[in-house]
Amino acid sequence: PAPAPVVVASNKRFEERAKIAVNPMATKLFNLMASKKTNLAVAADLTNKQEILNLAESIGSEICVLKTHIDIIEDYDQTFISALEAIASKHNFLIFEDRKFADIGNTVKYQFENGVYQISKWAHMVTVHGVAGSAIIEGFKDGLKQNGSGLLLLAQMSSKGSMCVGEYTNQMIEMANNNKEQVMGLICQERLQSMTDNLVLMTPGVQFNSTGDKMGQQYNTPEYIIKEKNTDIIIVGRGIYQNSQPKTEAIKYRAASWNAYESKNFN
Amino acid sequence: PAPAPVVVASNKRFEERAKIAVNPMATKLFNLMASKKTNLAVAADLTNKQEILNLAESIGSEICVLKTHIDIIEDYDQTFISALEAIASKHNFLIFEDRKFADIGNTVKYQFENGVYQISKWAHMVTVHGVAGSAIIEGFKDGLKQNGSGLLLLAQMSSKGSMCVGEYTNQMIEMANNNKEQVMGLICQERLQSMTDNLVLMTPGVQFNSTGDKMGQQYNTPEYIIKEKNTDIIIVGRGIYQNSQPKTEAIKYRAASWNAYESKNFN
Repeated sequence: PAPAPVVVASNKRFEERAKIAVNPMATKLFNLMASKKTNLAVAADLTNKQEILNLAESIGSEICVLKTHIDIIEDYDQTFISALEAIASKHNFLIFEDRKFADIGNTVKYQFENGVYQISKWAHMVTVHGVAGSAIIEGFKDGLKQNGSGLLLLAQMSSKGSMCVGEYTNQMIEMANNNKEQVMGLICQERLQSMTDNLVLMTPGVQFNSTGDKMGQQYNTPEYIIKEKNTDIIIVGRGIYQNSQPKTEAIKYRAASWNAYESKNFN
Repeated sequence: PAPAPVVVASNKRFEERAKIAVNPMATKLFNLMASKKTNLAVAADLTNKQEILNLAESIGSEICVLKTHIDIIEDYDQTFISALEAIASKHNFLIFEDRKFADIGNTVKYQFENGVYQISKWAHMVTVHGVAGSAIIEGFKDGLKQNGSGLLLLAQMSSKGSMCVGEYTNQMIEMANNNKEQVMGLICQERLQSMTDNLVLMTPGVQFNSTGDKMGQQYNTPEYIIKEKNTDIIIVGRGIYQNSQPKTEAIKYRAASWNAYESKNFN
């Protein structure tokens, strides 16, 4: 068996890493986190646009990023995007469309720029599976320029039996390193030595109290992810949006993940 | 290095495999191919609904399956689905939404059943990346029952540098074998020994004359795929929909791929 991967902390604060980042949205996000003092992202996996807007208004002051699945919203229309952008601007957070693009370059170009959603016009960042090969990056180049936005490559997943492990993970890190202008960060479960400081590391599957769902999702706590696994941002979904007091919960998650960040050793 | 995979032909005709198939849509598709005498699928990667409907009307008599990317259509609305269903019914072909679902089970359930597109209501088959692990299948179970539809797992891709190779491919075949009621087939580039006769094998990246595009897509001819690589269905995109005479081209591709099938040795 291959040696266990080495999990190491970055020794630089977010404001230092903003200067190292190559993708402009990575710089923006690092600076936003440093100034707003939050490394909490919330997944708004709701199917009604007003519910998402209500959640965003309620927790917007606590987060650096709001993660959407635009294609699960039943009553989607273009007014939703402008309303969400207004809330994001008011509360100073970025919009992350978790599309998990996973086709060939020619197709993802259309999926990103065209269609009903025109994702490239409003998303500050989008997720990409590199499963089709690194040429998928070509399909995003035009669209990314519209907004100065960035790609997040899926290097590891939190679900049971994920194929994003071992050599697959290494390949995604290499794809990120070879495309620093387009790739702003990684979706991962731990910071490996090869994950350089220009990349924002975001970790889903975070919840204070849960062991998982019936469809293979597995959970970790904020402290464990930020302090032991050394990633930068926790993404909390059901732990916040399914709670009857989402703002109160978001404040708790924000404090836990920011305190874990502040407790680390920096140069 | 691992030994080269063994590419073998099935010795059974489609009508025999219809009886072996477990997923109801696999049975339906095998029978449709046998009776209509076509193993040609066409990818309608167009961004205007009337253009897709015109293409479907023009080539419908030649194909077993029309492949869509519903999320690249600029002027999508629900009238498109009913119009496409009417053409599919008139010309006797199935609708394949190439969504490449690639999230965790809880999310793909919403992406499949809900949102603007409500894919589970109209697609006879959809593509799935198993990258998140086999629990993704759980997310489809309810939606598949609505239509008796089926999943196509991406076991191999035609793009350069694809990660769907080797052990990843083996894991997808195992996932298909462990979920025969849900998984109707595989997207692959060749028929490996472990790909059982209940599965429909479909191969994209087929064109008479082309070496590839600038975004990593690579092409093979119909004869090579059906006769040498032993898969069941060729998926032709730009070779047909970008031609000024799509029907004439579809007739040529249909003849080439059906003759390649008929020239094989069966029990």
